[in-house]
Amino acid sequence: MAVEWARGGPDLLVTLDRGAGPLGVQIQTQLRAAIRARRLGAGERLPSTRRLAELLGVSRGTVVDVYEQLLAEGYVESAVGSGTRVASLPADGPARQAPAFAAPFHPIEADFEYGIPDLGSVPLADWSWAVSEATRTLPTAGLGDEDPAGVRHLREIVTAYHRRVRSGCAVAEDAVVVSGFRQGLAFALATLAQHGIQRVALEDPGPREHDLIARRAGLDPVPVRVDDHGLDVARLRETGARAVLLTPAHQCPTGVALGPSRRRDLVAWADEVDGVILEDDYDAEFRYDRQPVGSLQGLDPARVIALGSVSKTLAPAIRLGWVLAPPRFVAGIVQEQRLSSRGAPVLDQEALALLMESGRFDRHLRRVREIYRARRDVLAAEADLAFGPGKLHGLAAGCHALLRLPDGTSERAVVAAAATMGVRVNGLDHYRFASAPATEPRPPALVLGFGNVSERQIRKGIRTLAKAVRHQTAP
Amino acid sequence: MAVEWARGGPDLLVTLDRGAGPLGVQIQTQLRAAIRARRLGAGERLPSTRRLAELLGVSRGTVVDVYEQLLAEGYVESAVGSGTRVASLPADGPARQAPAFAAPFHPIEADFEYGIPDLGSVPLADWSWAVSEATRTLPTAGLGDEDPAGVRHLREIVTAYHRRVRSGCAVAEDAVVVSGFRQGLAFALATLAQHGIQRVALEDPGPREHDLIARRAGLDPVPVRVDDHGLDVARLRETGARAVLLTPAHQCPTGVALGPSRRRDLVAWADEVDGVILEDDYDAEFRYDRQPVGSLQGLDPARVIALGSVSKTLAPAIRLGWVLAPPRFVAGIVQEQRLSSRGAPVLDQEALALLMESGRFDRHLRRVREIYRARRDVLAAEADLAFGPGKLHGLAAGCHALLRLPDGTSERAVVAAAATMGVRVNGLDHYRFASAPATEPRPPALVLGFGNVSERQIRKGIRTLAKAVRHQTAP
Repeated sequence: MAVEWARGGPDLLVTLDRGAGPLGVQIQTQLRAAIRARRLGAGERLPSTRRLAELLGVSRGTVVDVYEQLLAEGYVESAVGSGTRVASLPADGPARQAPAFAAPFHPIEADFEYGIPDLGSVPLADWSWAVSEATRTLPTAGLGDEDPAGVRHLREIVTAYHRRVRSGCAVAEDAVVVSGFRQGLAFALATLAQHGIQRVALEDPGPREHDLIARRAGLDPVPVRVDDHGLDVARLRETGARAVLLTPAHQCPTGVALGPSRRRDLVAWADEVDGVILEDDYDAEFRYDRQPVGSLQGLDPARVIALGSVSKTLAPAIRLGWVLAPPRFVAGIVQEQRLSSRGAPVLDQEALALLMESGRFDRHLRRVREIYRARRDVLAAEADLAFGPGKLHGLAAGCHALLRLPDGTSERAVVAAAATMGVRVNGLDHYRFASAPATEPRPPALVLGFGNVSERQIRKGIRTLAKAVRHQTAP
Repeated sequence: MAVEWARGGPDLLVTLDRGAGPLGVQIQTQLRAAIRARRLGAGERLPSTRRLAELLGVSRGTVVDVYEQLLAEGYVESAVGSGTRVASLPADGPARQAPAFAAPFHPIEADFEYGIPDLGSVPLADWSWAVSEATRTLPTAGLGDEDPAGVRHLREIVTAYHRRVRSGCAVAEDAVVVSGFRQGLAFALATLAQHGIQRVALEDPGPREHDLIARRAGLDPVPVRVDDHGLDVARLRETGARAVLLTPAHQCPTGVALGPSRRRDLVAWADEVDGVILEDDYDAEFRYDRQPVGSLQGLDPARVIALGSVSKTLAPAIRLGWVLAPPRFVAGIVQEQRLSSRGAPVLDQEALALLMESGRFDRHLRRVREIYRARRDVLAAEADLAFGPGKLHGLAAGCHALLRLPDGTSERAVVAAAATMGVRVNGLDHYRFASAPATEPRPPALVLGFGNVSERQIRKGIRTLAKAVRHQTAP
């Protein structure tokens, strides 16, 4: 597809040698070569004759002659009101192939992919307002001299918010703004490695690829079982790890919340081993009928690094997050940020601060909370109907739930069968630690994300899944 | 400073236990604790009584009683039209100290800091327009399912631009969008390391901290001398490195352009050693009286990785850049992006594509090019006056130049003396490879960035520098 440059498009690079023969011939030769080599693509607009003449310091007549010659030769086309454009040439070499994508078996009718918020509800007008405000209010110097820790205003807002809404106790000096959860995790782990921590425990099942991220940061990841009360702290003790990463508010992917006695055990463990707890305060914003539980960071600020982002509360497209860390780790995390990418975009940081401070962020959360609550209710009702009561777990918060399948069902077969019927879903095994021993029982289950799927699609999707399961378990 | 939440601010986390005594007492106790612990800061607004009652499922009267009690106890204050706010409490513990910054000796009157564009000219209204357009035109699905390589539209625009303006020859499939030069460099080097390249040559003097970034990526950095024709390719051959990073269009910090025979030698070297050239196509946008030279990437697309960003053409605050790589390296760079931060913000990527396609980017470049040209002319005239002709080098392009100092002058002493007179500048030594042998002669010089300093400040600054130099060289 041709790039649609407005007006004449950007300057063209043509190099003239004033001692090497007629300038018109030089321009012609170079334009011809650029078009042949596809440096100028078919349909792409050339600069106006006036502009190119100005640019090259030649008379306009010279350029007019060149364009007429190229027109005559078929290299360019001319249309009234649209200027001079590059013509389509026959292919003169092996065209580069676009990479082949694996086509889905079927058009997707219900997508239970995990971790995607309702994209139709992203507050785009609010975001646009916030960016515009940021361009108006940010001091000029703020456009250049970036603090890799992040914009002070955003660090103040994020920590005040975390103190107020999540019962945290970090201040702006403890916060580093990052591009999202992954970047925050990578920086925090690299900093722990520099502090002599060699092993990090991860939830099993748990979020995908965190083991890879840990290895890249120089740590040795070890799996720890998750049961009905969350991470098994007794098992954690056995690993010898001095750091653990977990999702206490709403475990990914099982949906359980870390139980009260487990929270106490975890904090006691950290104290005993001089350890660090990495808290992915994931889905804490979306609770439905459970008492809110404060962040672990508020409980033990000297040992907890809290990680957050707006990928699920606003949209992945905004790419902002934060790390709230005990003071001894902050300098290391800032240094990681400085050497990796210098920081997140300042205008976006200021925009997020304004979005939160103005109340628009909360208004958005309240709005989508109701949408998710309704979807959750439909999901629960449909699952009860289709699979019998008590099969759906982890529904107290967030945007995903766990559907237990009859013993002996093959997750893989159900997922594949569902795909042929237009339903995208993942099995629980998808979230298990690749290198963990398979000695534990692994009852089959599906992880159902319902953030970006309509109530109608949920109804349809659950019925399709029931069909796929029956197909697998039929004698 | 108090956070200025609009209206009542975000929800407050208060946890009620319906079996544990009067609810009003529980709310009171928790608010008091939150204020004492500074989780709620002085001046911070509390939710309205109506909102808090709703949130906690208690009667409004209960909350009114709580607020009145706290008011009586001095924890909160009330003002007509401004709601209930947290009062200032006397400090009850060691307050956290704000980090101490090294104060400059003097207010800065001229800042010749290198690498900062004219921040007063950043096209903020255009950027705001572009973000707003992006929120309106980006398909909903684009807000969630990010391609770590970057938004297709931007990759098409950036490569078409590079082909047209820089004589490049990359297509969208060769491009990966990153947060800026540093992130692109880190990803490219990590990918080269995976391809078995162990050593990377860096310009000496050259951009700062690139040796650190190379080491973090798992490579061994080695310095190669820069002379009046740019990087010394004969020396490069001796290093045994199979990768080299350089700034051919306008060397950082000496300002020389890589000479024509050096360009040929460099490409021949890459072919001989099966090597890779990392091209920092830095300052190529700002040429004044030199013939434009195409990018190395266009000359040898199979061996050159081109790195670019908008940090100097637009502003560091926008944080977007790109890597254009030979096909065999693209998957590795994309994987680095996926595991590090998933990608740059999609809305910003789309905004930049629209900015470039609409012609606003070029209009901005033309505008600032004239500003920089005028500053350069003033700088050249003032330097001739103050130091005698021929002392200023590297002025043909870009936003910085090199001022040679009389032999025997101490750069460090001049820089320090200038600082006490309100002029910020760096010596050339600041850009030398820390671990390189100091056997080469190192004639003293200052690096003068003139991107973000007005003509008046340049005049003043150069006179001050002349004074600082005289002071050092006086017998």
